[in-house]
Amino acid sequence: MAPSKTIYTGPFVHSRSLKELEIVEKGAIGVDEAGVIRFIERGDEVGEEKRPEGWEDAETVAVKGEGFFFPGFVDTHTHAPQHPNTGLFGKTTLLDWLQTYTFPLESSLSSLSRAQHIYTNFVLRTLSHGTTTCCYYGTIHVPATNFLAKLCHERGQRAYVGRVCMNSDLSPEYYRDAGVDQAVKDSRESIEYIRSLDPEGSKKGEAIVNPIITPRFAPSCTSDCMAQLGALHRETGAHIQTHISENKGEIELVKELFPDSTSYANVYDQAGLLTEKTILAHAVHLTEEEKALIKERGSKISHCPASNTALTSGCAPVRELLESGIIVGLGTDISGGFSPSILEECRQAIWVSRFRAMNDGDDAKLSTEEVLYLATRGGAAVVGLEDHIGGFEVGMDWDAQMVRLGVVHGGQKEGEEKLVEGPVDVFGWESAAEKVEKWVYSGDDRNTVAVWVKGRLVHRKDSYEA
Amino acid sequence: MAPSKTIYTGPFVHSRSLKELEIVEKGAIGVDEAGVIRFIERGDEVGEEKRPEGWEDAETVAVKGEGFFFPGFVDTHTHAPQHPNTGLFGKTTLLDWLQTYTFPLESSLSSLSRAQHIYTNFVLRTLSHGTTTCCYYGTIHVPATNFLAKLCHERGQRAYVGRVCMNSDLSPEYYRDAGVDQAVKDSRESIEYIRSLDPEGSKKGEAIVNPIITPRFAPSCTSDCMAQLGALHRETGAHIQTHISENKGEIELVKELFPDSTSYANVYDQAGLLTEKTILAHAVHLTEEEKALIKERGSKISHCPASNTALTSGCAPVRELLESGIIVGLGTDISGGFSPSILEECRQAIWVSRFRAMNDGDDAKLSTEEVLYLATRGGAAVVGLEDHIGGFEVGMDWDAQMVRLGVVHGGQKEGEEKLVEGPVDVFGWESAAEKVEKWVYSGDDRNTVAVWVKGRLVHRKDSYEA
Repeated sequence: MAPSKTIYTGPFVHSRSLKELEIVEKGAIGVDEAGVIRFIERGDEVGEEKRPEGWEDAETVAVKGEGFFFPGFVDTHTHAPQHPNTGLFGKTTLLDWLQTYTFPLESSLSSLSRAQHIYTNFVLRTLSHGTTTCCYYGTIHVPATNFLAKLCHERGQRAYVGRVCMNSDLSPEYYRDAGVDQAVKDSRESIEYIRSLDPEGSKKGEAIVNPIITPRFAPSCTSDCMAQLGALHRETGAHIQTHISENKGEIELVKELFPDSTSYANVYDQAGLLTEKTILAHAVHLTEEEKALIKERGSKISHCPASNTALTSGCAPVRELLESGIIVGLGTDISGGFSPSILEECRQAIWVSRFRAMNDGDDAKLSTEEVLYLATRGGAAVVGLEDHIGGFEVGMDWDAQMVRLGVVHGGQKEGEEKLVEGPVDVFGWESAAEKVEKWVYSGDDRNTVAVWVKGRLVHRKDSYEA
Repeated sequence: MAPSKTIYTGPFVHSRSLKELEIVEKGAIGVDEAGVIRFIERGDEVGEEKRPEGWEDAETVAVKGEGFFFPGFVDTHTHAPQHPNTGLFGKTTLLDWLQTYTFPLESSLSSLSRAQHIYTNFVLRTLSHGTTTCCYYGTIHVPATNFLAKLCHERGQRAYVGRVCMNSDLSPEYYRDAGVDQAVKDSRESIEYIRSLDPEGSKKGEAIVNPIITPRFAPSCTSDCMAQLGALHRETGAHIQTHISENKGEIELVKELFPDSTSYANVYDQAGLLTEKTILAHAVHLTEEEKALIKERGSKISHCPASNTALTSGCAPVRELLESGIIVGLGTDISGGFSPSILEECRQAIWVSRFRAMNDGDDAKLSTEEVLYLATRGGAAVVGLEDHIGGFEVGMDWDAQMVRLGVVHGGQKEGEEKLVEGPVDVFGWESAAEKVEKWVYSGDDRNTVAVWVKGRLVHRKDSYEA
């Protein structure tokens, strides 16, 4: 269903820059039939009389009670097939976790009906957490991966969907590409299918669902395979996603497997995979040389703090990455991570930065403003959409969520003091900034009552009334 | 309303020991009118024919769908008046956080109606998260503190409620005890009131709500004040709660303020406050001598990982504390902590232990089994109730929660694949142990559908049907 011209009224909050959050307590945002923001009014400007011509009959969607509009979240790294393993990792670390938990589950998505069962639930989950753009790893299976892309297309979630390539013998025999040719052929097939979902949009670079070339990570691929995927990128212009420098054992393994490369980042660079359109997940233990190379190539980094903590991978130096000019977003990395929520990832990014601060000093600490930037504008820049999503600006798309917070009743009689829906308790004396803080530190999906992508309503809670 | 004789049927899970969780997939637990567990059947034993005489007409409460009974959580450290500040701390650390956020809010509870507003909501919140026993700090105000105790008594939550003592000039003039005499007099008054709620029970040591002597922490109290509170403890036999060694700046301050003491722990010991009935919150930076002294005195420790992370206090060495034989439980420490949930605290304890592991090696890691033990039996031992709550044993009280997990529907048609209530997705192929892991790592209050204390139903979700 095509969206109609709509004016969204009420408070709105978004990042102006890494350090600055704009909190507008009274606002109105006009979104046209194409889902594009056409005007924004703030404070005293808000009022019918000032509304631009042609908006007289527009629908209105207002925030009721306490709440605000916030840009949709961008999840720059997650594994859809691993969703049923969420919360299962025990005390493992990356390499044994892959063999114990991940490969057996992923291989089972050779069954398309199983993939449908898992993916349908996972896309609903990520939407319910306000994720309007998601970078998905699939499995090696083309039918399952194509189903995931079609699902996002139908449900209206902006997505980058990648068929995973893994041809080396790190992967078990039961779950591995048959060879380089097969890996490239299957990847190409999936790219073509995904682009066929919206051929016009794909040509113009406006499709909401896009393919992404996905070599799992260097230890899973031979040099030859990676080089051919680099060529496939040059041929198709598709984005690239992979992992880098997550865990010390993995880094040692890369050194052994690729003795001719000068670093982990160099392995990808030699294959032509380190580009402006490349998303590198983790980047916990990069050397100075690697950071300089990544900066030079314009590749982006997906910071996945929940996963890095759960698998004891380490604390990524986000402050240093930002200061060296690298673009950073957040990733949930299901199921290394334990939550499909980017809001939870914001908190985890703060905790990880505090653990770094305990060792390295206060400068490492990320602020609330900074993690919200990473979750929205940072993520948008990671996927090259910084001019289209991540903030509220005229000309940008309406990728947004309505956040609603619970107001604590004052009544003392039995029954009058029922808990409000959702975990955030607003007592009434908080400042606008404090309400945002409360949401960031104690909110969850119950507070995200509606979600839009490009103007289309793609998720709503039962409690939401437009 | 007095509970009736009830048989709880379905899976149940509890700690046998620090390292061992017992998962019973088919069980029945008989609880009498006094809320005491009278029999437990496991597996093949479960069945009407074996049921003890006199239980023929007992009510039955069964777990429907996926789920299990689990012991109620014990929160060994939290500040009820700080609940409205949950999530507000910015980049502060302990000492500036107290002045900026905490003292202004606490002082406002001189208004009883404000206290009622806050406390009513907070007790409902903690119950909704499955907390059946809670150690509460109040404020310096007797009426507000007494209201909190009465509320717990009426709602049926097991609680230790303490009027806070703070007479030194660390506290602002607007929020401080008028003097030592006043501090002791007010504390005594609150102890007497709380014991009057259930005089019989208090005499026999069976009351569910009890007073607790609460010197805020050494820097807030003069030596004289602490010594008199030590005497009050000897006179009344009431428990004691305070803070210790949370933050390095605080430790330096204690050294300056108490030059005649050999350590922070020694300050309390000299005042007669280091006893078997003392709960010490945090204990992040204890010296070996302090650990030995605490062990010798039999004092207990409340580990508050969320708070320690949020305020960048440090990572408490829980493994070392446990190995030195000290009893440890978990505390949410609202609003240094950012969640009233002990389940969240279980996760935070695991994350903190992993950060220690990154620096100190794998032995520091706590397992799922270990944190669940700390949350239940550990906490029970912290408050001296290890023979009465924290596990499912004949003769123990039925302090329990019913946990229910969502089952993902397989349907693919629009509308058939709605999200289940709550954040945990069970696909159907998980083992019983994996279901517990999913709850621990991704569950929240939505999964706690009913809560009992001493056999009394004290909280239920709308979705719960007995």
